[in-house]
Amino acid sequence: MEITGKSIIGFSRGIESDTTFTAFNPATGEAVEPNFYSASLEELNKACELAESARIAFGKVSGKEKAKFLRQIADNIEALGDALIQRATLETGLPNARFVGERGRTCAGLRMFADLVERGDWVDARLDTPNPERQPIPKPDVRSMLRPLGTVAVFCASNFPLAYSVAGGDTASALAAGCPVIVNAHFAHPGVAELVGLAVSEAVKTCGLPEGVFSLIFSKGYEIGQALVKNPHVKAVGFTGSRVGGRALMDIAAARPEPIPVYAEMSSVNPIFILPSAMEKHFETIAAGLHASVTLGAGQFCTKPGIVVLPETEETEIFTSKFGELIAYTSKHPLLTEGIRNNFEKLSAARKTKISSAENDLQGFDVNASVFQTDAETFLADSSLEAEIFGPTTLLVNSNKREELLEIARKMEGQLTATIHGTPEDLLEYEDLIAILETKVGRLIFNGYPTGVEVGDAMVHGGPYPATSDSRTSAVGTRAIRRFCRFVAFQNFPNGALPDELKDENPLGISRLIDGKLTEK
Amino acid sequence: MEITGKSIIGFSRGIESDTTFTAFNPATGEAVEPNFYSASLEELNKACELAESARIAFGKVSGKEKAKFLRQIADNIEALGDALIQRATLETGLPNARFVGERGRTCAGLRMFADLVERGDWVDARLDTPNPERQPIPKPDVRSMLRPLGTVAVFCASNFPLAYSVAGGDTASALAAGCPVIVNAHFAHPGVAELVGLAVSEAVKTCGLPEGVFSLIFSKGYEIGQALVKNPHVKAVGFTGSRVGGRALMDIAAARPEPIPVYAEMSSVNPIFILPSAMEKHFETIAAGLHASVTLGAGQFCTKPGIVVLPETEETEIFTSKFGELIAYTSKHPLLTEGIRNNFEKLSAARKTKISSAENDLQGFDVNASVFQTDAETFLADSSLEAEIFGPTTLLVNSNKREELLEIARKMEGQLTATIHGTPEDLLEYEDLIAILETKVGRLIFNGYPTGVEVGDAMVHGGPYPATSDSRTSAVGTRAIRRFCRFVAFQNFPNGALPDELKDENPLGISRLIDGKLTEK
Repeated sequence: MEITGKSIIGFSRGIESDTTFTAFNPATGEAVEPNFYSASLEELNKACELAESARIAFGKVSGKEKAKFLRQIADNIEALGDALIQRATLETGLPNARFVGERGRTCAGLRMFADLVERGDWVDARLDTPNPERQPIPKPDVRSMLRPLGTVAVFCASNFPLAYSVAGGDTASALAAGCPVIVNAHFAHPGVAELVGLAVSEAVKTCGLPEGVFSLIFSKGYEIGQALVKNPHVKAVGFTGSRVGGRALMDIAAARPEPIPVYAEMSSVNPIFILPSAMEKHFETIAAGLHASVTLGAGQFCTKPGIVVLPETEETEIFTSKFGELIAYTSKHPLLTEGIRNNFEKLSAARKTKISSAENDLQGFDVNASVFQTDAETFLADSSLEAEIFGPTTLLVNSNKREELLEIARKMEGQLTATIHGTPEDLLEYEDLIAILETKVGRLIFNGYPTGVEVGDAMVHGGPYPATSDSRTSAVGTRAIRRFCRFVAFQNFPNGALPDELKDENPLGISRLIDGKLTEK
Repeated sequence: MEITGKSIIGFSRGIESDTTFTAFNPATGEAVEPNFYSASLEELNKACELAESARIAFGKVSGKEKAKFLRQIADNIEALGDALIQRATLETGLPNARFVGERGRTCAGLRMFADLVERGDWVDARLDTPNPERQPIPKPDVRSMLRPLGTVAVFCASNFPLAYSVAGGDTASALAAGCPVIVNAHFAHPGVAELVGLAVSEAVKTCGLPEGVFSLIFSKGYEIGQALVKNPHVKAVGFTGSRVGGRALMDIAAARPEPIPVYAEMSSVNPIFILPSAMEKHFETIAAGLHASVTLGAGQFCTKPGIVVLPETEETEIFTSKFGELIAYTSKHPLLTEGIRNNFEKLSAARKTKISSAENDLQGFDVNASVFQTDAETFLADSSLEAEIFGPTTLLVNSNKREELLEIARKMEGQLTATIHGTPEDLLEYEDLIAILETKVGRLIFNGYPTGVEVGDAMVHGGPYPATSDSRTSAVGTRAIRRFCRFVAFQNFPNGALPDELKDENPLGISRLIDGKLTEK
């Protein structure tokens, strides 16, 4: 498929506007062909109108049909073949293998939601049966289930050109819920966006769905993205990116005449607490594991461990020296955009006690990995040390007092994850630390690393602000679909007028809560 | 129990401040003893600090213990006996019988949540089992469940002194979730608030729970209530009241350094669509049923039908005349506050075509019931006609075109409910109308009335903005507990360190989703 640089507005394409931009090759810093044309407000509004006109019909499409659609998208993405992988590598500086993996994850996610909506149980169907004899008033027949929220705006993530972009987790879960989706492409990988956008758009046609189910908008600057969030037809927003960007969208959404939910996944330093027992026995493997986690994808994961709290023991010195060595021998790697690179350099320069860094010659948006160190007292006194630095760097915080550990946990902002390295006995001995951490994060990890988020029913990828805008949800796993739904009840409705999920005969054979009892099939 | 007018700050009482107010008897407009003392900012902050210090411990209290606590609250409320009923009648002008019923509903609600948390399944426990052999990386053990959000601020509703006030649905569901609660009493029924507040506070002591689990704040004006929403220890807000009040709290919550969810149940006109078939056969029973629904509790329910769309048929004239007659013979009734009465009079006076009203002599905060009429064209051209008038009045909208019905539905703001009167065949014939209405409301009712919200697992009391601030939830029924929770995952945790709900041996015997399969016990 040819990359044309034009937005995808339902089944038509955007015009060649005067406002253009290009992708960049982070490895060289050079512009990459072709030009991309920023959508006009009129084009954006047309996409929103199309979505609005598709909304009710798409909301009534059966789980089986939605499953077919999601699987078709996955098939179409796979059919793009090497062209997609090569373009992703060109636009991001990340290796081919990464995108083979990320494509697998993206398509697996689409198929996971296909399976979920085909099975159908996810709607939380509930039936409270009537009792006409009840005194003083008859008990009505009340049945309810999840229904789609309406059109969803999805902002592509810089660091996940496939898995959290055009057909990534937000889009897949919104489409699965029955919501039309309008995607705002990320300026750093617009070619990938167009290729995947065409794959989605083709699937809409193949499956005979209404035109407005999917649009993809290219834009330069913030105006069009903000207008998308302000559009009255948009009923929810999915975003993965910086804290500043996420908060800006939250504020716009909250100030609308009709405020709407924003699911922004923003910043997290994913603290790791290494307890003395783990340091004593496993300093070598932890140094290697931590190095892999900090430098994975050039440290450009929202789950990268940015703070590591260490005991002040003899082994800690060996650990630190070993970890510093691994950092020093880390290959250079370009970051995704010039802005991310500049931010990395600026924030790193403001940190005082660098204990090791790689010293490769740099070009393009390259950076060198680094590690900083401080003590608990300094850390607790300077909240800037808790700020996320996106890229291959981390901060070691030495602490020798249990009370300091608790204080670090208490002062910590909301995080996606926290990790404890120790023995099973430590978890009981440090119950108070775990109890505090549990209230600060979406996921607690024992003797592992936060990067590499498993996709499944039980995963929680979320956490209190500022890790995300809405701690009640998960952006990964099947629970993500609930972000784009709301409950609707039907009272005393005739059986024939009810959605299939709520009919007496349970034609879909789903599990339902009937008079408080979970009923299988 | 004596009413002292002092706030309840954990286990201590507020001071006799200089800022005081009294309740009023709506039937006479006269002040009611004693004085209530507005809490100071220091007292409010103390309540928040106490809640913060109780948060982690209360969040770990078992479902069994929480159930005992909730049942103790219900028992204590019942033990207040007639004193509570009489005070409620005095402060609201509503009859004793209403409060006998509302007390029953309130205590039933507390016991419903007690049963729910004792059973334990509500936490949506999920286990994805590990696979150390998986390539390219081992599959981790991931388990997750709902955990409490943190301290919740509850604002009492003017129109539900028991069921949506100190120990009402918001408080019961927040406590059930494991969240400390700070209640802001409504100025119109502070005596009821104090009595119920003491009942809750006693239960905290009896059950040996931490002091900060519950506080009750009296305040004059908005300053203290706003400070409560701004307090960094508060993590969610429950509110039932006006659209202006709810939006103000939403805006404050969204502007916090850490924005928090607000569950505001605000305004709704609960449209009723009477289709020709229903009008033809049932005009008489509908007139009587509608009159009862519009005037129930002096029209002071959030589910009162404020707009009734009628066909232009012969029977409609008889219906209208019959309904007008019922309105004309309606007894006067005081509204809850002077402000509500004044608003009712002001908004009613701005409506042009009153076709009938009662003409009783009025005193105190009394009003007369009324009914207005307009045609679809006028209604569609003047959005002010869609505004809620809180009190015993409704607006009949005559329409003879199917397209007008659809347009009325399309233009309508978010509502708690919509009702259709017709035949089962009508629901299929008017499928397009139902499809639009479904996207506008939380509950669709067939051949009934929206007042009298059934409490149960399947109920949805919610709806798109401005009916509520968060359409994804329900304020009534067991689903309400989820408003005050978020998911937390535990990855590779040793069995002994997991919450009971997630342990291998399932000691609580709850149903759980294990590797995608719902497992009973």
